[in-house]
Amino acid sequence: MTRSLRVAIVGAGAVGGFYGALLARAGMDVHFLLRSDHAVIAAQGLRVESPDGDFHLPADRLNIADRADQLPEVDLVLLATKATANDSLPELLRPIVAERTMVLCVQNGIGGVEACADLLGADRVLAGLSFICSNRISAGRIKHIGFGLIRFGPISATPVLDPTEVQRALSAGGLPIELSDDIHRDRWAKLVWNIPFNGLGAAMDLSVDRLIDHLRGLELVEATMREVIALAESLGHAFPADIIEQQVIKTRRMGAYQTSMQLDRRLGRPLERDAIFTRPLTIARERGIDMPIVQTLNRQLACFDPPA
Amino acid sequence: MTRSLRVAIVGAGAVGGFYGALLARAGMDVHFLLRSDHAVIAAQGLRVESPDGDFHLPADRLNIADRADQLPEVDLVLLATKATANDSLPELLRPIVAERTMVLCVQNGIGGVEACADLLGADRVLAGLSFICSNRISAGRIKHIGFGLIRFGPISATPVLDPTEVQRALSAGGLPIELSDDIHRDRWAKLVWNIPFNGLGAAMDLSVDRLIDHLRGLELVEATMREVIALAESLGHAFPADIIEQQVIKTRRMGAYQTSMQLDRRLGRPLERDAIFTRPLTIARERGIDMPIVQTLNRQLACFDPPA
Repeated sequence: MTRSLRVAIVGAGAVGGFYGALLARAGMDVHFLLRSDHAVIAAQGLRVESPDGDFHLPADRLNIADRADQLPEVDLVLLATKATANDSLPELLRPIVAERTMVLCVQNGIGGVEACADLLGADRVLAGLSFICSNRISAGRIKHIGFGLIRFGPISATPVLDPTEVQRALSAGGLPIELSDDIHRDRWAKLVWNIPFNGLGAAMDLSVDRLIDHLRGLELVEATMREVIALAESLGHAFPADIIEQQVIKTRRMGAYQTSMQLDRRLGRPLERDAIFTRPLTIARERGIDMPIVQTLNRQLACFDPPA
Repeated sequence: MTRSLRVAIVGAGAVGGFYGALLARAGMDVHFLLRSDHAVIAAQGLRVESPDGDFHLPADRLNIADRADQLPEVDLVLLATKATANDSLPELLRPIVAERTMVLCVQNGIGGVEACADLLGADRVLAGLSFICSNRISAGRIKHIGFGLIRFGPISATPVLDPTEVQRALSAGGLPIELSDDIHRDRWAKLVWNIPFNGLGAAMDLSVDRLIDHLRGLELVEATMREVIALAESLGHAFPADIIEQQVIKTRRMGAYQTSMQLDRRLGRPLERDAIFTRPLTIARERGIDMPIVQTLNRQLACFDPPA
């Protein structure tokens, strides 16, 4: 018998909004911590447009709060804020985590999982990856384009919640979720996708299809992927020989998808540059690995940093 | 007494259209060879909008042709076509050049001057640089934004026309033109500007002010310039110690200028990538000079190549 978990969703954008809406629709005990979108969602609820079927959760079916101390203690926090806001993680998380609360961090890149582990201890952190194409159209309006799997795993040998139990409870709540046998390798495999498509997409303002449907774009994507693979392999991770082909095939099924970083550029919002570029480049520099394309992309993306 | 020259303008876009209009307005014996814009200019003439004063030359005051064999032989050809069309230089130039005709090539980058020299001999080629902010709004409509100087010089010790005489004749025709004491160095100095601003501008779709008004953009522009300077210095060219500052100060006076390459990207036209990027990079590779930013820019710009 699967134990029911009380879950907090922190961040209700393209990722947290979608997964939180699935859990709420399934009747799970789920609580949203919202900041900028609180007022709109309190008035209009959450709306998801999806090829799997549109649905709307009116506000009176949602537990929402705009301050962490208004939430009950929970078993699991699904942390889906942008990595750009990680400076405020302590004030976000401390009021809602009890002694045995775990945080499932589904942020892109490097940094969020590490910050959670610093804050709470590695035993209380699950690293998650969301393979989803979705965009936040406006406050409380999520457009789910396709995919949706969460892959996750513990980052310590002694997690305070059994990951299998987490997987069962969230699956029962309607989340497509699977347990990884090596989440660290999987995080780097995701960077093999994120770095070229978020980076080139935002720096050049091109959608993913526009990059891979042009022979020279595809060559550039692949050359960028090879730089990331070389770094990950230097860290001891091993990938399938056809990882690049696999990622390109998956990308072809996304159509004219604009990554979150491309949208952030277009909308003048902060980019997740630190998590997806600066931290991997710091690791590369420490290891003496040359990443000339990724380095140039990072410099280009820095041109969209908010003024100092 | 300055001898009058008969001049052919080949290419009447943002550069050739502007200079040709100045010469025609001054009453010089000037003949335009036009291709795609011929019909519109034959009907409506040439219109220049400029901070120095707008003016319009009706078609009956212009000598225009759409085939090279319809032009008279001339003393000087001002070659202002895009470098992307240099495959057709032989058919363009052969019918209008006589034994002592010189070609003043004001194309960007590397390749146009060399192609003219291969075709006609170095004694009959003048290398020119146009320091102008202008855009072709539509056929026969040129928007001159600012600047306008042409700097030029012979590429051989025995030019068939005295460059001083060319300078005097074109000055008398209203062209702001000066003779360089080292046109090869000046061509590389112009690449120090063109490579960052055309390259970053087109690859990232950013105007020149957007690049230099952001601290990280300015740093990237300067790092790109340093790569070009290192290559030029390896070729024996020496620049003022403050060449980067000079170029940035000049760029600040351009406002929100979009380079021709950025406009070409936006309008789906071929970019002058070969002349401004591929050829300099080929020289760099031959000399063992590393240009990681320029190399990445070239790969990004290749994403806008017409489909093979």
